[in-house]
Amino acid sequence: MNIGVLGTGMVGETIATALTEKGHNVRMGSRSANNEKAAGWVKKSNNHASQGDFNDAASFGEIVFLCLNGAHTLDAVGAVDAENVASKVVMDVTNPLDFSRGMPPGLLDGLSNFNSLGEEIQKAWPAAKVVKVFNTVNCNVMVNPKLVNNGDHSLFICGDDADAKNKVKHFLVDTFGWKADNLLDLGGIQSARVTEAYVPLWVSMMQAVGTPMFSIKVVK
Amino acid sequence: MNIGVLGTGMVGETIATALTEKGHNVRMGSRSANNEKAAGWVKKSNNHASQGDFNDAASFGEIVFLCLNGAHTLDAVGAVDAENVASKVVMDVTNPLDFSRGMPPGLLDGLSNFNSLGEEIQKAWPAAKVVKVFNTVNCNVMVNPKLVNNGDHSLFICGDDADAKNKVKHFLVDTFGWKADNLLDLGGIQSARVTEAYVPLWVSMMQAVGTPMFSIKVVK
Repeated sequence: MNIGVLGTGMVGETIATALTEKGHNVRMGSRSANNEKAAGWVKKSNNHASQGDFNDAASFGEIVFLCLNGAHTLDAVGAVDAENVASKVVMDVTNPLDFSRGMPPGLLDGLSNFNSLGEEIQKAWPAAKVVKVFNTVNCNVMVNPKLVNNGDHSLFICGDDADAKNKVKHFLVDTFGWKADNLLDLGGIQSARVTEAYVPLWVSMMQAVGTPMFSIKVVK
Repeated sequence: MNIGVLGTGMVGETIATALTEKGHNVRMGSRSANNEKAAGWVKKSNNHASQGDFNDAASFGEIVFLCLNGAHTLDAVGAVDAENVASKVVMDVTNPLDFSRGMPPGLLDGLSNFNSLGEEIQKAWPAAKVVKVFNTVNCNVMVNPKLVNNGDHSLFICGDDADAKNKVKHFLVDTFGWKADNLLDLGGIQSARVTEAYVPLWVSMMQAVGTPMFSIKVVK
């Protein structure tokens, strides 16, 4: 499948690499079509990897991953012609974290409490099917859930389009080995508020347990 | 032990009842010394139960539980003479939830993101040893952790006083049967921000799993 990955940071590179290794064609998108980090990634990757600007990557992908820094996400989203993502599943991995006031982090002004990046992205791209997912685990765990508790831990999914969420669930199970029973649907995209608001706790837990290679499992 | 429980709602009554059943002397505190809900609780409880106003309950307790509605917590805290809680361990169970805009809930203005009820309570009672705890599980689970996953799930503790946190850990283990390994210390009281900010996710998960009798377990 052709997949666009917007973002050249650790999260974007980890997801893009995992996808190319599984045989998907991945175009990494950044502000400029010749971004050096993306070029470095293409060079060290297999021939399924390519690069382009945000619009190139968005139009290339049948599905699109958003792996942008929270503070720059809405600028990047605004730089993409909404037609390039219309009717596509957009897997939104972003978090509006604000580390500027020390630990624990908070969330960026205007993107906390009764708002979220997930909702703002859906508003900016009304014809896209935005699914918030993956934002509550370390990027290595996203693509290899077995790194934690033999793969037995929970992941949250939310979005307004039921069919899109179903596609994402199947994709996570088939591509990365997530257990279907551990994928918890929290409802519409406004539930992005609660999964984004969880991430400061994730950061505090990471400090307490001493590793980012952990997760949580919902138990009854 | 003499214990003060401030709050007459479901959380306060559940904790107060569990404590009297374990032989502790509990004074339930409310705005007025003859509050009807507290009187009803005393009437149906054993002879370890008594009632009073907020100051009566705070001064009675060697330790004090805060089980107030988030929206009224700081008013109640302000009504207590800080000397009545000086040097005492205060177990703060409150959450600043705001359901006024529908689901999922958010947090009250001024008590979200870079602030928290835990911090405001510590500021109001500077000589108390405020420990944020219990605010991330259902009240029945607080006093009987075995209701979920045979007692194997995680609970967060934070507060500025290491000795107070240690006392709370022992109290939870000895009194309610929490497993010591599942009590995760997240640091100082400012980490109350992250455990309070988690609760909207807890509410969304409760809707998804269909019961409040669940919790999360941190797994590696």
